[in-house]
Amino acid sequence: MADALFEKVAFIGIGLIGSSMARRMMADGLVSEIVACARSEETRSKALELSIASQAFEDPAVAVEHADLVVIATPIGSYGAIAQAIAPALKPGAIVTDVGSVKQAVVDAVTPHLGEQNPFVPGHPIAGTEDSGPESGFPELFDGRWTILTPTDETDTDAVEKVKALWQAMGAMADTMTPSHHDMVLAITSHLPHLIAYTIVGTATDLEDDLRQEVVKYSASGFRDFTRIAASDPVMWRDIFLNNRDATLETLQRFSEDLTALQRAIRRGEGDALEDLFARTRKIRRGIIDAKQAD
Amino acid sequence: MADALFEKVAFIGIGLIGSSMARRMMADGLVSEIVACARSEETRSKALELSIASQAFEDPAVAVEHADLVVIATPIGSYGAIAQAIAPALKPGAIVTDVGSVKQAVVDAVTPHLGEQNPFVPGHPIAGTEDSGPESGFPELFDGRWTILTPTDETDTDAVEKVKALWQAMGAMADTMTPSHHDMVLAITSHLPHLIAYTIVGTATDLEDDLRQEVVKYSASGFRDFTRIAASDPVMWRDIFLNNRDATLETLQRFSEDLTALQRAIRRGEGDALEDLFARTRKIRRGIIDAKQAD
Repeated sequence: MADALFEKVAFIGIGLIGSSMARRMMADGLVSEIVACARSEETRSKALELSIASQAFEDPAVAVEHADLVVIATPIGSYGAIAQAIAPALKPGAIVTDVGSVKQAVVDAVTPHLGEQNPFVPGHPIAGTEDSGPESGFPELFDGRWTILTPTDETDTDAVEKVKALWQAMGAMADTMTPSHHDMVLAITSHLPHLIAYTIVGTATDLEDDLRQEVVKYSASGFRDFTRIAASDPVMWRDIFLNNRDATLETLQRFSEDLTALQRAIRRGEGDALEDLFARTRKIRRGIIDAKQAD
Repeated sequence: MADALFEKVAFIGIGLIGSSMARRMMADGLVSEIVACARSEETRSKALELSIASQAFEDPAVAVEHADLVVIATPIGSYGAIAQAIAPALKPGAIVTDVGSVKQAVVDAVTPHLGEQNPFVPGHPIAGTEDSGPESGFPELFDGRWTILTPTDETDTDAVEKVKALWQAMGAMADTMTPSHHDMVLAITSHLPHLIAYTIVGTATDLEDDLRQEVVKYSASGFRDFTRIAASDPVMWRDIFLNNRDATLETLQRFSEDLTALQRAIRRGEGDALEDLFARTRKIRRGIIDAKQAD
């Protein structure tokens, strides 16, 4: 068992990601004490019941007392208020990090509230499932997955290294890039796919009753995968789109142009153009398998 | 072991679906003899090497001699030529069926060539993976999945029952509907999702080199699922879109309208509209799980 990397860790939000981190930290002895903060009484009870945290609080300012590391793991829209609430209660030197899927907006929301003694290390584990809540977490979630840290020029480098070491100890590979570059990459790999999956499943829910029932019944590969993606947490995804608006809309614009071109090829019966595209896309799958992010 | 339902079965095309059927038929003794027809020498050798067929032919007319059941399992664009080639060689009473993902175009392509003594029972197993070729098949592929048969008013009902019994013996649940209704349902559950997955992966392949490499490296849930869908057989999918043009374009039109509405909601920062849609789509996933087509 490794030496503890942090003494006391406070999770603000203890859903899929937070509870998976907590489970792994505990299983591998990476920290000495874990407390959690959650708005709902139900989540707090569950966290205690599952022994994910030794104490659970409603007030984030109380939760962060004496913590060496604070992990913000709530929907992104709540970050500003949380940072404001915890700032006066933070121990000098305590590191604040997060797991949000958008990074520039998060940096803008959090850093103005924190004093110089409390570095903010923005982070994003590229891992997850469509489930949510503390009961859905599991300690192996980050094994072999990337976590992207997006420090700015002002971020304390020792703090970045500590957070990086923690992710590596939890099984992840860690990399750093600028917040805005992260947001562009993720707009393509995650935000646009979710937006499209939500749209197509939404299109299906608007069908006449009979047809919708058949769509569910004969749900083939394709639609079935989209429904899994579109079953992700609604509030979390609302906040992602609202906070990565520009990159999402830019990516969506490119996608729409390409879709229009494909639509025209189908309408005109241009078989060669279709086959050519479909053969090209097959290759990128091979690249992902080679990068060990799929099998 | 069940009594054989057919004496001799000829597969025209022996890829993922054909070879899975052949493997199951043999494993469960559902037929006495299996022969295959494939255009490429490589596929024929592989079919023999894998013992999926006792004989393999290049000429479909030779392959269907003395067969009681002929299964067309090639890309849809080849159906007309195949029907024309095999019609004179078919044994009186031999049933012709298929496994294509579009049904009205298939009925139109095949039936004009067949005589009254050879009923055509159009079929479509809603099962598959993104892999192709005879080596990718496996006997359990159809277990618990639906196969949709689309007989017309002229189709011999005994022939329909025999093909239905075969699918049930191969582990599938069988249902019937009209060809055009099938094509509308599948346009939503399968053809549109594939079209969109191909588009978004195509959009990513057109990115600048550096960004594309990062997209592959940090491929998150979402994009990763899309690349799996977009790794499906290019020729098969080209033919599906060309042969289900109207239903695909109509569905695409609905989708595009919904996507535009969502785009506007993001641009305007309408969080409530986003959250409302995302909560609705979550429910349809529950319906699919309840229908036992996902877990």
